[in-house]
Amino acid sequence: MPATYQTRVSPAWVDYNGHLRDAFYLLIFSHATDALMDQLGLDEAGRARTGHTLYTLECHLNFLAEVKEGEAVEVRTQLLAHDRKRLHIHHSLHCPGEDISLAQSEQMLMNIDTATGRSAVFDTAVAQRVQQLADAQRDWPAPEYVQRLIGMPPAK
Amino acid sequence: MPATYQTRVSPAWVDYNGHLRDAFYLLIFSHATDALMDQLGLDEAGRARTGHTLYTLECHLNFLAEVKEGEAVEVRTQLLAHDRKRLHIHHSLHCPGEDISLAQSEQMLMNIDTATGRSAVFDTAVAQRVQQLADAQRDWPAPEYVQRLIGMPPAK
Repeated sequence: MPATYQTRVSPAWVDYNGHLRDAFYLLIFSHATDALMDQLGLDEAGRARTGHTLYTLECHLNFLAEVKEGEAVEVRTQLLAHDRKRLHIHHSLHCPGEDISLAQSEQMLMNIDTATGRSAVFDTAVAQRVQQLADAQRDWPAPEYVQRLIGMPPAK
Repeated sequence: MPATYQTRVSPAWVDYNGHLRDAFYLLIFSHATDALMDQLGLDEAGRARTGHTLYTLECHLNFLAEVKEGEAVEVRTQLLAHDRKRLHIHHSLHCPGEDISLAQSEQMLMNIDTATGRSAVFDTAVAQRVQQLADAQRDWPAPEYVQRLIGMPPAK
């Protein structure tokens, strides 16, 4: 899977332990979503042309490993499903080129008409790119951390 | 419900729309978790004394309303369940004193021995405060956004 977004862990993103704070895993995924929007024609020029943007409605995060200040990381993004207004996606965080996932996030994104603040059907050109992305990923396996409920493990 | 944490939306937290970016909702909740740790005796002095801290293992976020730069907000926190090592909590974001929720997050936190990086049973004094918090909240109703799966709505 190609990387959607690459960065290095900023000193501003670590907590008192020197580890990436939970919210900044999501910031890295948020930047990956921006990169996905660029790919789909919803970059700044595309947002101006269509009057549309994407909002995150809901997300789930699994923190699987500590990440330290200065580490290089990359995000890989999979389109799980889509309809005329929504993208159901999955991001996975990795050291560059490595298989082991450091964190995963399942997300639901909604196409929004910025003039009204309401949901809107994807612009035709954007919808074509969404379909192309779905077609290109048709045979990708399902990611590991999806459709999870948060709860206590059974008592032993 | 009393506020766990209060802040104002920083200019650094808004995106190109002037709205609070998804990751910074989680940063506000993350600061509320820090405040909860203070309440439980896991502030800086308590972390030094016990050698323990809390890690976020998993979280779910629902983004319910836009929040703009400069707005005052507060987080209210509910302990949903706990065992000897884990806290299952829920944060809700509000304008100060208002009922309407702007965002909610269900989270699982694990007590970690910082020397080994492994899970550990809560320190006795911390466990007592956890139990006091659970007792004080015994009659609180369940929050609205918990135990959610992310998925496409049924086709119409």
